[in-house]
Amino acid sequence: MQDAAHRPETASELPPPLNADEEVLMRSLSRVIYALPRALDADMAREQRLPLIEYQALMNLSEAPGRQSRMSDLATACEMSLSGMTSVVQRLEGQGFVRRVKCPRDGRAWNAVLTDAGLARLEEAWPTHLASIRRHFLDHLAGLDLHALGVALRDVAT
Amino acid sequence: MQDAAHRPETASELPPPLNADEEVLMRSLSRVIYALPRALDADMAREQRLPLIEYQALMNLSEAPGRQSRMSDLATACEMSLSGMTSVVQRLEGQGFVRRVKCPRDGRAWNAVLTDAGLARLEEAWPTHLASIRRHFLDHLAGLDLHALGVALRDVAT
Repeated sequence: MQDAAHRPETASELPPPLNADEEVLMRSLSRVIYALPRALDADMAREQRLPLIEYQALMNLSEAPGRQSRMSDLATACEMSLSGMTSVVQRLEGQGFVRRVKCPRDGRAWNAVLTDAGLARLEEAWPTHLASIRRHFLDHLAGLDLHALGVALRDVAT
Repeated sequence: MQDAAHRPETASELPPPLNADEEVLMRSLSRVIYALPRALDADMAREQRLPLIEYQALMNLSEAPGRQSRMSDLATACEMSLSGMTSVVQRLEGQGFVRRVKCPRDGRAWNAVLTDAGLARLEEAWPTHLASIRRHFLDHLAGLDLHALGVALRDVAT
């Protein structure tokens, strides 16, 4: 217990306070966390009548092997709860963009499968989403090292 | 209508597709938007028994003139709905960290006021939040130009 590192409540245990650049960055971050998803969703709803979360579900399925995914995996990929994802997939199913089938490896689980109509809907909506992420996000980052930034952010909160 | 820029459905109207660096960045972004707030909230809940949103409300009030803010302004600052913010402030009021008073300039509106106990709670919780944003976010960005990044992100989705 002589070691300062093990004494609680000492100044040495406080992390260094934010410097000016870190302070600006942390304040800007709420634009990314809250305002950006709202702006992307508003564009998709207005121009495509397709909420961002439904677009994200279609996109994830299009990239999955056999264009299908267990509901729980799809929920994780879309950063949603399983019950939230179930509602999203039910809406997509009602529009003919997704089918649900029993999971071949686990009879109690369901897979969501992207239909041809769902793939066509995704392709139709993609230019809107692309323009939206360029306008609301990527255009603001002109001149920055996007490679380094992308690699750095990949491990955030792991 | 001779102008190609005004003809719809032409290739020239499609925004350029994402390059490899932009693709990685957009995939990493979901870590920031979804995983980071969850990680910060989990740290605050575990180490401080103070949900991140309550911490953010106390922090915003501490920086407001007279340590008070109209409920609607506080909701906007915390990126919440007014009804959501009302619930948060009611919980903080129940713990003695916030008082609600009639807004002196608008008798129909309410101001939230940070109490001395609320300020002390904020100061107690601050080291946890600081360590948390360093560990989950800032430490990952070592070597990047944080000044340029912070300035760039400030205008995202405006």
